[in-house]
Amino acid sequence: MTIFLFLFAILVATVAEPELGQFYTTISFLIGGFTSIIAGFIGMKIAVYTNVRTTYECAEDIHKGFVVAYRGGQVLGFTLVGLALLILQIIIIVYKSMLNPQTQDEVTTMFEVISGYGLGGSTVALFGRVGGGIYTKAADVGSDLAGKNVQGLPEDSPDNPGVIADNVGDNVGDIAGMGADLFGSLAESTCAALVVASKSDLIFHPDAIYFPLMITAAGIIVSFLTTFLATNFTRVTKDNVERTVKYQLILSTILMTAAVIPLIFVLPNTFEINVFGNPIICTQWKAFGCVAMGLWSGLIIGYITEVFTSNQYAPVQNLAEACCMGAAPNIILGLALGYFSCIIPIFCIAITIYGSFTFAGMYGVALSALGMLGCLPIALAIDGYGPISDNAGGIAEMSELHPSVREATDKLDAAGNTTAAIGKGFAIGSACLVSLALFGAFCTRAKLTSLNVLSAIEFSSLLLGAMLPYAFSALTMQAVGDAANDMIKEISDQFADGKILSGEKKPDYDRCIAISTKASLRMMILPGLLVIGSPLIMGTAFGPKAVGGLLAGCIVSGVQIAFSFSNTGGAWDNAKKYVEAGEHYTKKITDPKTNQKILMKKKTECHQAAVTGDTVGDPLKDTSGPSINILIKLSAITSLVFGGFFSKLHPL
Amino acid sequence: MTIFLFLFAILVATVAEPELGQFYTTISFLIGGFTSIIAGFIGMKIAVYTNVRTTYECAEDIHKGFVVAYRGGQVLGFTLVGLALLILQIIIIVYKSMLNPQTQDEVTTMFEVISGYGLGGSTVALFGRVGGGIYTKAADVGSDLAGKNVQGLPEDSPDNPGVIADNVGDNVGDIAGMGADLFGSLAESTCAALVVASKSDLIFHPDAIYFPLMITAAGIIVSFLTTFLATNFTRVTKDNVERTVKYQLILSTILMTAAVIPLIFVLPNTFEINVFGNPIICTQWKAFGCVAMGLWSGLIIGYITEVFTSNQYAPVQNLAEACCMGAAPNIILGLALGYFSCIIPIFCIAITIYGSFTFAGMYGVALSALGMLGCLPIALAIDGYGPISDNAGGIAEMSELHPSVREATDKLDAAGNTTAAIGKGFAIGSACLVSLALFGAFCTRAKLTSLNVLSAIEFSSLLLGAMLPYAFSALTMQAVGDAANDMIKEISDQFADGKILSGEKKPDYDRCIAISTKASLRMMILPGLLVIGSPLIMGTAFGPKAVGGLLAGCIVSGVQIAFSFSNTGGAWDNAKKYVEAGEHYTKKITDPKTNQKILMKKKTECHQAAVTGDTVGDPLKDTSGPSINILIKLSAITSLVFGGFFSKLHPL
Repeated sequence: MTIFLFLFAILVATVAEPELGQFYTTISFLIGGFTSIIAGFIGMKIAVYTNVRTTYECAEDIHKGFVVAYRGGQVLGFTLVGLALLILQIIIIVYKSMLNPQTQDEVTTMFEVISGYGLGGSTVALFGRVGGGIYTKAADVGSDLAGKNVQGLPEDSPDNPGVIADNVGDNVGDIAGMGADLFGSLAESTCAALVVASKSDLIFHPDAIYFPLMITAAGIIVSFLTTFLATNFTRVTKDNVERTVKYQLILSTILMTAAVIPLIFVLPNTFEINVFGNPIICTQWKAFGCVAMGLWSGLIIGYITEVFTSNQYAPVQNLAEACCMGAAPNIILGLALGYFSCIIPIFCIAITIYGSFTFAGMYGVALSALGMLGCLPIALAIDGYGPISDNAGGIAEMSELHPSVREATDKLDAAGNTTAAIGKGFAIGSACLVSLALFGAFCTRAKLTSLNVLSAIEFSSLLLGAMLPYAFSALTMQAVGDAANDMIKEISDQFADGKILSGEKKPDYDRCIAISTKASLRMMILPGLLVIGSPLIMGTAFGPKAVGGLLAGCIVSGVQIAFSFSNTGGAWDNAKKYVEAGEHYTKKITDPKTNQKILMKKKTECHQAAVTGDTVGDPLKDTSGPSINILIKLSAITSLVFGGFFSKLHPL
Repeated sequence: MTIFLFLFAILVATVAEPELGQFYTTISFLIGGFTSIIAGFIGMKIAVYTNVRTTYECAEDIHKGFVVAYRGGQVLGFTLVGLALLILQIIIIVYKSMLNPQTQDEVTTMFEVISGYGLGGSTVALFGRVGGGIYTKAADVGSDLAGKNVQGLPEDSPDNPGVIADNVGDNVGDIAGMGADLFGSLAESTCAALVVASKSDLIFHPDAIYFPLMITAAGIIVSFLTTFLATNFTRVTKDNVERTVKYQLILSTILMTAAVIPLIFVLPNTFEINVFGNPIICTQWKAFGCVAMGLWSGLIIGYITEVFTSNQYAPVQNLAEACCMGAAPNIILGLALGYFSCIIPIFCIAITIYGSFTFAGMYGVALSALGMLGCLPIALAIDGYGPISDNAGGIAEMSELHPSVREATDKLDAAGNTTAAIGKGFAIGSACLVSLALFGAFCTRAKLTSLNVLSAIEFSSLLLGAMLPYAFSALTMQAVGDAANDMIKEISDQFADGKILSGEKKPDYDRCIAISTKASLRMMILPGLLVIGSPLIMGTAFGPKAVGGLLAGCIVSGVQIAFSFSNTGGAWDNAKKYVEAGEHYTKKITDPKTNQKILMKKKTECHQAAVTGDTVGDPLKDTSGPSINILIKLSAITSLVFGGFFSKLHPL
């Protein structure tokens, strides 16, 4: 809240547009923020409604359970994308009639003030991703270490005081956080495309300028068709859950590619795009090329992510084997795996940037970002499906239902884990493209036509920018560590008198929730200030060129950390599952009456090593990694919104 | 060897200078390589001679032990710097008389072919740092996991078949590797300064152009004075070893700052430096400013490194406390600590780059690199002192001397650990400045006057460049993991029949040494090809601009990884020592007759967690982190040497 108010105050005080622009930017900022909050709120409400039903349906038939959980995710997906598009369209119509822009510059100004909408969405994402990430992992790590490891309780045991905070956290982090993140990406890439388009001769074609919005609209229809096919013509069994989910990603990408083709005819045959002062000629098919490149590199990134994080493939299986050597080899090889996993996604993104930039400058980059986000409703549905089935499992455990129910929800959850990793890869890729598009829009606004790294201020700020993701990750990791410590102390205190384990009293879940909530809000202030403050300070002190260098450094360095953290964490998670399920789990001692079975499992050293990896990976993949998306996007859009101010302070 | 030959072949085949230049570049490449090998060889020989003597002297008096170990390091320091300077001077004199350059362009060409000297040095550093790093850590991790953890042997136990490989590795990695790395930095920054100077009007002042060499020469005298004061007027006791060593760093920095002042008068009052086409006016005092900034930011980086890695300060102490929560919190907070530790060093480097670039363009950056390397003999002496006292401890253990000897060598070693971390920080900082200077020299040679990241190819290659350090680290970490596995298998096989532990047979040390040697040579091929191949491929396919983007991305992203890896690893190492020494070591069970004491120590969970951190940190701080120095320098100098070829293929 502090940060939201802080940014709001700065926005009101300093955006150095004429008074009019300042007011309108603030309004669209507020609308963007509230739209994102509403979409996240609906998503979380639905998730809470759906997870009980999923458990209930799973008792009868896994197919029904899958459909319910997946439809819960769809509500998030369609609501969020639909709302984002609808509200943005309304803002454009209202602003257009109120501001009534006549010249090209006035149109540009109109779209620039509208880009406050994206800033609002991204500021909320700061709460969802960073705050939510700290919330969920403090609860998860804390209850795992104090409950599972020390007391030997099973996962999701109702005796663990942290279990409710952990389950709430899954919703906060994966549903509200992921939703707000992708809402921000969508809103920002659309705004960036509009700003750049308004500087081109597309402005003389009243429909053509809204091409970016049409891509998203087409995506909603394609996603609807895809899920219709997926949930009505396939029967989900225990073995094909993952395949059903993955199949939709491929299907929607193919359908979407086809759907974009008719749209391009809304664009003129050829049109001129202004690329930092140099006009280049773009055609309908070049625009299609940009969208398609984004779309397909999204799919490739998703596939690579799967290869590196699913336990069906060699990388995770090798990692599971390393667990038998001890925790240290698991950590070393896990980190190496994450670094390896960057290579192909970075190549994909680099090629997409090269291609789309060559075709249509920063407009092309924004289009490829929109292409990557084309099937967003599907991606969000899959992503929302994960925590719903995860929590369904938790409910089955806590209500002490028949083990077969838990088994069914576990199958759903396992598929959800892999697809969640895919969703993360996809979110990172689009965040990179979006930030680059925003970076381009910033340069246009700040009147930068080149950014020469062979000069003192640009290279120094490039170096500082590359440091930002490290400082930011350090802050978020430290925050999880500190909050988890508070949680461990609270849980240990509750266990201290032994009454919970002997069944004499119920654990106090609320105090654990309060700890997570307070810690996450308090500890996101510093990372938040870093994100918003760095470009503001650099811009005020050294002008737009320094901000440009900072952003470029931050994007190219951040995206690597984001990929590697997210994949390392996913791989450790699934390596642990592989050890638990497979032949690596050597000493199997079962006592079905008590919880001893799980206790003995924990004692095999191989499993212990796998658990250490998983615990280290949790904050990496769910807090620090995804937060980098926010860092690179929010610092870029902050720069864009304040770009006019910087260039007034430091005229080139 | 493969890589050396490979590079040699490429060099002979493609360097697209006139035939003459090609031949001379190759010759200076070979001379640089051999000089570095000779310096490393002398350093290692001396280290082996000295460590026995250190053990012997420690039995009598710790002061005498310190003096012997430290003087061993000095031999390395003075030999290396002296040889580097001497041979370079000889090459310059010989080439000058043979090529007899008349025009300014001919002088530039002469210095460009001389820069093959730096490439040769850096190629050897690839062996020393990357190969040596894999060697030492495969032996260390392997013998720790298989010998210490599984069999419960103490550190440096003669019963451990891997112990000799481990001790040899300390010499290879820390003496030959560090030496070759810093030899490369020195040679390269001197060459870069000469190339840039030859394009300025310094060329008309026959002495002024050799100002860079004079800085190094003054450094030798200052270092001599410093060590003379340190070893003759202070008495080392058990408590002031670390202080004595640190004191020298500060003293030498102060003396060196003073020593540079008379040198600047060799430069003309004002002179013109060509900064990518724009001439700027530099003065004597600006040149002094560049050198001094490098010198003092080196000291600050060293100090910050100490704060983050010494167990006298809060960061490591907090990390040691986290160990009591388990291995996972130790890993998470350790990674966060490494990321935090980047912030101030990166600020220092950014300010140094900004200042020196503003004063004198890339000439200024090269001067500040030389400034940072000014007290190199001291830095190398301190660095060499570490493994000598470490091995002295090993010898005391293996010869079963009185425990008080081991205690004395341990004191020496503890100081060596902290100062080794300082040396690493310092090596990274100078590598960053050197690469930037080489990058500048490359741009000059490839006729690039600007590198605008607001264009397709530059931004894409910036992104790819930022990925290189990740791919490289992944390769080196994987290499250590794989080689350590081979080592573990060998050691376990040797232990299998139980005869070693019962004293019936001696372990076969040679087979462990052979494993480390073979693995390190085989596994450095891929990282080596990555370093040298990436700029070659990018340059051949897309021209100098792509190479420029690649180098910029690689430098700004690599330096962060290098700092964070090196400091994380150092912090984990010392956190373990803190746990072993302090109140965190809770369960103390002693049985003086057998090795049981150490066995029981290992069983406390807190210590186990600390050991996990240390084992993870070992390859980070001794293989992957320092190897990044080689990555950024070697890719930059490869680009410089082939810069003419790229610009011929792709004229701007």
